[in-house]
Amino acid sequence: MKRVFSGFQPTGELHIGNYLGAMVNYVALGEKLGRDAIYCIVDYHAPTNPAAYDKELLRQRTFEAGLVNIAAGLDPDKVILFVQSHVPEHTELAWVFTTQTPYGDLTRMTQFKDKAAKLESVPAGLLMYPVLMAADILIYKADTVPVGDDQTQHLELAREIARRWNLEYGETFPEPQIYLNPNAPRVPGIDGKAKMSKSVGNTIGILEDAESIWQKIRVMPDDPARIRLSDPGDPDRSVAFKFLQYFAPPELIQVLREEYARRGIGTLAVKQLLFQEMMKSLRPIRERAAELRANPERVMDALEDGARRARAIAQATMEEVREKFGLLSPRRKVLS
Amino acid sequence: MKRVFSGFQPTGELHIGNYLGAMVNYVALGEKLGRDAIYCIVDYHAPTNPAAYDKELLRQRTFEAGLVNIAAGLDPDKVILFVQSHVPEHTELAWVFTTQTPYGDLTRMTQFKDKAAKLESVPAGLLMYPVLMAADILIYKADTVPVGDDQTQHLELAREIARRWNLEYGETFPEPQIYLNPNAPRVPGIDGKAKMSKSVGNTIGILEDAESIWQKIRVMPDDPARIRLSDPGDPDRSVAFKFLQYFAPPELIQVLREEYARRGIGTLAVKQLLFQEMMKSLRPIRERAAELRANPERVMDALEDGARRARAIAQATMEEVREKFGLLSPRRKVLS
Repeated sequence: MKRVFSGFQPTGELHIGNYLGAMVNYVALGEKLGRDAIYCIVDYHAPTNPAAYDKELLRQRTFEAGLVNIAAGLDPDKVILFVQSHVPEHTELAWVFTTQTPYGDLTRMTQFKDKAAKLESVPAGLLMYPVLMAADILIYKADTVPVGDDQTQHLELAREIARRWNLEYGETFPEPQIYLNPNAPRVPGIDGKAKMSKSVGNTIGILEDAESIWQKIRVMPDDPARIRLSDPGDPDRSVAFKFLQYFAPPELIQVLREEYARRGIGTLAVKQLLFQEMMKSLRPIRERAAELRANPERVMDALEDGARRARAIAQATMEEVREKFGLLSPRRKVLS
Repeated sequence: MKRVFSGFQPTGELHIGNYLGAMVNYVALGEKLGRDAIYCIVDYHAPTNPAAYDKELLRQRTFEAGLVNIAAGLDPDKVILFVQSHVPEHTELAWVFTTQTPYGDLTRMTQFKDKAAKLESVPAGLLMYPVLMAADILIYKADTVPVGDDQTQHLELAREIARRWNLEYGETFPEPQIYLNPNAPRVPGIDGKAKMSKSVGNTIGILEDAESIWQKIRVMPDDPARIRLSDPGDPDRSVAFKFLQYFAPPELIQVLREEYARRGIGTLAVKQLLFQEMMKSLRPIRERAAELRANPERVMDALEDGARRARAIAQATMEEVREKFGLLSPRRKVLS
């Protein structure tokens, strides 16, 4: 692994599923790789999904995505964190790849077919989205992409684009691989089912109001066999216990499991402990977020500094690409 | 008419059909509009046509397109003449439009269907080409596009893209109109049939070697009824006379027509006169071309200066577009 690229959609708030499932890993990768860990808020992707894009909210959501990722531990002095549209070379490389990618390959993408089937009018951006995604990754010559397995097919396309280019124009891009951390937990939703996901509406936001978090924990499904406090309970059938593992120390969890099973403790007490431990874990993030919100220029400084560093890499790649593609280069920069 | 945009593909040499049919008008428009006449060598379009694109030749052809257009009379101190890939904002606006353009509208383009039908593997660029073309025009807020009527459908798409954008994001772009000069001659091919066209292979290049031009004129079809010099001839059935009208003074043509009809002059003599008059007309262009070829830095200076001026306009439009589209703007330029 030499260089990691990861893109976040600026849609809505980071939830604890994202945080525990991905962010913790991103932070770890960032610690390890430093400036070779590149994190991009992909605002130019947002409008490819008419359901996600709102021109009145995109700007604020992009800023929020920067803020919450820094608060959650991405250190912009170590990693490169930036906004996609601040590095317009992404769209330029996407055009180059568009001319080199078979149209049929794009219409065969499963996500395109699924999403297109639900829309009355399909924007061309939905078809072209994986080409921009390939450009996002390859413009940094990233070889490692920590994404979910729903992105496997798009990553395969990016690899094909890299392979085809290298064959035709000479070795330029590594073939990026998906990085799936086997230790990353698949955090369930507050309903105990499925995966925590914004689209299912079963999330707890890491910056969500404390009272609202408590209300969500309070109604988490319990072992349905335990109706009265005097009934024995199975902690494995209690959603609160599933969450407790991420936030409480193992010794405490062990004691609580035993008490719960032998009727020594009620669900409400477990949930109160979960709430306390969760808030304790989230507190440093929430404090950093509040501090950044009071000083928005720190977020903007970080994003702009990230864009400057990202752009230096992206421009070097584009110079190489233009040369190999056969374009007439200007002898010097045409605009300072 | 406020601002004209025209794009040239950097494919092969300018021929006298281009010159008489379009260039003469472009020069006239340029004289009239000055810096509001924008001429773009569209090198990022070339690879959308696998038959036209050759990575080994594109660079030289792009340079040649600059050289020959300047030689033919486009004054880079008056108009803006530049290379598309030197202003990467074209591809950025194309991406924005891609997210706003129905996929179905693109698959219905006649040129796409015709060209795609002839290809085994259709590159996505062939589908997306009219979106980049719309961006080329609209990024300069051009309202007038002097193109051939084969581009009517693509221009209509550009108008729709402008209309849709203006409706959704507020008035930004004029709806560009085709400018068809009724006085522009439709120059025939050297075979006397059809229109002079590179794809038909019936052209005379304006920088073509004199001996080669003479050989093409020498075999131009004559009135087939005139077999011997002593037969009467119909000048309207002689291809040489069709060409003579563009290069010789009317009085001379009148005399030649009469002589030709009453057996006073042979075809070869008419052709020799045509050759002389044509070379006389082309001489200043050819001399300027030779001078520019000896001083290639003048062509590069002109193209780079054009790109700087074009880019200033394109960047201003993109700032407006990013703002209206809802993107988070950096507070200052992220890279000098």
